[in-house]
Formats: sequence, structure tokens, C-alpha cells
Amino acid sequence: MAGQEKRPIVTVDTVLFTLRDGRLATLLQRRDKPPHAGSLALVGGYVRPEEDASTTDAAARILAQKAGLAGLFLEQLATFSGPVRDPRGWSLSVAHYALVPEAALAAAHDLDAFPVDDPPPLPFDHGAILAAALARIRNKGAWSSLPALLLPETFTLPDLKAVYEAVMDERLNDSAFRRKITELRLIEEVPDARSPATAERRRPAQLYRLARRALVAFDRVI
Amino acid sequence: MAGQEKRPIVTVDTVLFTLRDGRLATLLQRRDKPPHAGSLALVGGYVRPEEDASTTDAAARILAQKAGLAGLFLEQLATFSGPVRDPRGWSLSVAHYALVPEAALAAAHDLDAFPVDDPPPLPFDHGAILAAALARIRNKGAWSSLPALLLPETFTLPDLKAVYEAVMDERLNDSAFRRKITELRLIEEVPDARSPATAERRRPAQLYRLARRALVAFDRVI
Repeated sequence: MAGQEKRPIVTVDTVLFTLRDGRLATLLQRRDKPPHAGSLALVGGYVRPEEDASTTDAAARILAQKAGLAGLFLEQLATFSGPVRDPRGWSLSVAHYALVPEAALAAAHDLDAFPVDDPPPLPFDHGAILAAALARIRNKGAWSSLPALLLPETFTLPDLKAVYEAVMDERLNDSAFRRKITELRLIEEVPDARSPATAERRRPAQLYRLARRALVAFDRVI
Repeated sequence: MAGQEKRPIVTVDTVLFTLRDGRLATLLQRRDKPPHAGSLALVGGYVRPEEDASTTDAAARILAQKAGLAGLFLEQLATFSGPVRDPRGWSLSVAHYALVPEAALAAAHDLDAFPVDDPPPLPFDHGAILAAALARIRNKGAWSSLPALLLPETFTLPDLKAVYEAVMDERLNDSAFRRKITELRLIEEVPDARSPATAERRRPAQLYRLARRALVAFDRVI
């Protein structure tokens, strides 16, 4: 059996995605302990075998404790490992990503938003983890329910199109978008619910919500 | 800093895929040590910080040492963790999968092939890891170069179609297959190379190989 002295350091880190001014942003936290104290970084910490049922459980606990986050869709991304990524020694981080709708931000603390394409320099290999998470959601966001998880529970079709555009980083054609969304049966009308008219939209718009079957693909809702 | 006594056990396990009688099979190894000594299981072992540059490196080292395998495409699948998956204590396994062409099997040892859809009962959570790997390659195999990695370096179009069918577990239409493969530019003709005529095929067939650009998506070639 491998001696304890030979075991790697085991941590988890979570890439947090949210919308800021209609654009995809990531939420970072200033580290309060060494190594890299004072740097902005992903929210992460040690796995605690005495408390955590899995690494995803550890990620959820740390998001709640360090950033006041709950009510998120959280998924494992990949494990990053090696002798030099952390100055404390051979380590691995089971990286996760989560989608943070505006409602979940109300109770959150100690987080700063940055555009995903222009983050500050990040310590450890957090830059590579962020890049991998971004590639994953851009890939997975192409016609899954994922982008809609950044919206409130009910939304209009133009809201939905805007969030797909933000995640996928491309302009979508209006009618092609509506056709695709209908084909995929990801959303359903909320009976008798309309959003009020706005300056841009003179008539009230039908409200939609994600269909229940569109939500099964995530590891965990915390 | 977390004490050593609190660190999880860190292992790697690899799901090995190969072709057996034209069907997709997985290679298992009989465990020679407890826990579960004598059971057929995935090929795995401890990460050794003093030797391994990453968990993928550990998986490659263990495949070479325990099964004589080299020359494989190897990729990280996901990390499986928790307090009860291993009787030795809270553990995580960074699961990988690899594609084993027939040529790599020549030097291999201590492996038995089983149909992917009918494996023996597996210890730990190896059944869940195998199922996840199978889902991944069926998904990723849909029009990536992945299935072709199970073939020799040069192959005929009918060989290639058969391996896509084995991985994706569906019958493919001949002309649709040729069109798709051409569109994707995954393969190129080997100049002046033809396979000999066979009982099923009266004329020699053009030989193909994977285009170099089709090979970039893998973590590592070991």
C-alpha cells in the first residue's frame, strides 16, 4: 500500500461563468493565504475526506463557504496534475465549472467578474483551467440547454437567443435560432405568462422555461 | 495546510478498447493483490509523485509495467471519487481510456478481451468507469478520427467503415459513409498502395491512412 507520505495534494477548483452586461464573464476571488496570497484566482480548496462525499461535493462545499454560492449547475471538467503546478508539492486539482445565474449572485460574496476573453493573469495553472472550461461550454453550449442555465427561471425568446450568442460567441440568425430551439424541445411555454412591454419591445412577450428533460445532463445542482 | 493524514488515496485506471472478431472489446486484467485479488478489473495503480509528471503519465507507466502496452492513444476520461469506492479509504481514480490497435497487442501480456456490452462483474466502481468510457467513445467516435486509431496504420475504406460501425454500434450506409469521411478530410490516400485482393474482394483496394491533422485531439501518444 502506498504510504501517506507519497500521496499527492488533492484540491478542487471551479470556473464560474456568469453574464455581465450581456457578455460571458468569469468570477474570480482574491486569495487570502499563500501561495499566491493577494492574487485573483479560481475559487478552490482542499478535498476533505472526513466531510466530502466526492470531489464534486468538495467543490460545492467550497463554493458555499468561500463565496456564498448555492443553486448552481456544477459539472466536473477535468483533472490537472503535476509536480510544479503548486509550490507546495505534487498536486492535482479536479477542476469543475458552474453556471451562475443573476439570482444566485444576490447572496454571493468576495467575487469579481471579468470578461472570459480578457481575464487578469492567474496563478497556478488556473489560466489553462479557465481556457479548458471556456472551450467546454462553447462546445457543449452549441445546442444543449447549458446557456439557458445563466438565465432566470422564465425568459423570453430574445433573452434566450442573447445568452446563446454570449456563450457561443457568435451572432445567430433569428429564424434559424427559433427553428433549432423548437426542434430540440429544450424549452416550453409558461402558460399565460408574458413579460411586460419594454422600450425595445412594444408588445408583451411570451415567457418560456427550460423543459425538465433538458436538465438531466449535469453532475449536480447545488 | 492539510495534513498528510487527510489526503485521499490517488490512483489511475484505464479502460482499454480494442477490436476482437470485428467487434468492440475491452481488455481486463486479473488483480494479483487485495483488495479484490483474483477479480478481473481495469488496469490501474497508484500515482507515484516521485516518478510521474501527471496522472496521464502515471496511467502510461502502469500500462507499460503491468500489461506491456505502448504505442496507444490515451486520454483522460473523468475522475471518480468518494469514501466507499475502495475499501482502503477515501480515494479517487483519474480514469483514462486508450485505443489498442492489434499491433500493440503483440507485446502485451496479462490481458483478457471481453465484449464491451457484456463484461464480467467488475470490482470497485470499474463497471461505472467502463460505461462512462463507452459512452464517451461512442459520442466522440461519431465522426472524429477516434475509431480509426483501432486500425493498422494503413487500411481500406471497408475496413474503416467496419471499425466506425463497431465503435458507434450501428450500421452505416455505404455511400453516406464515403461522403462523410471525404467531407471531414480525416484520411488521405497512400500513394501507389493497394491491399491484395481477398475472397470477398476480387480487385485490390486503395489503401488510406489518417491525415496528420486528424490526430491532434488526444492527450498523449504513449
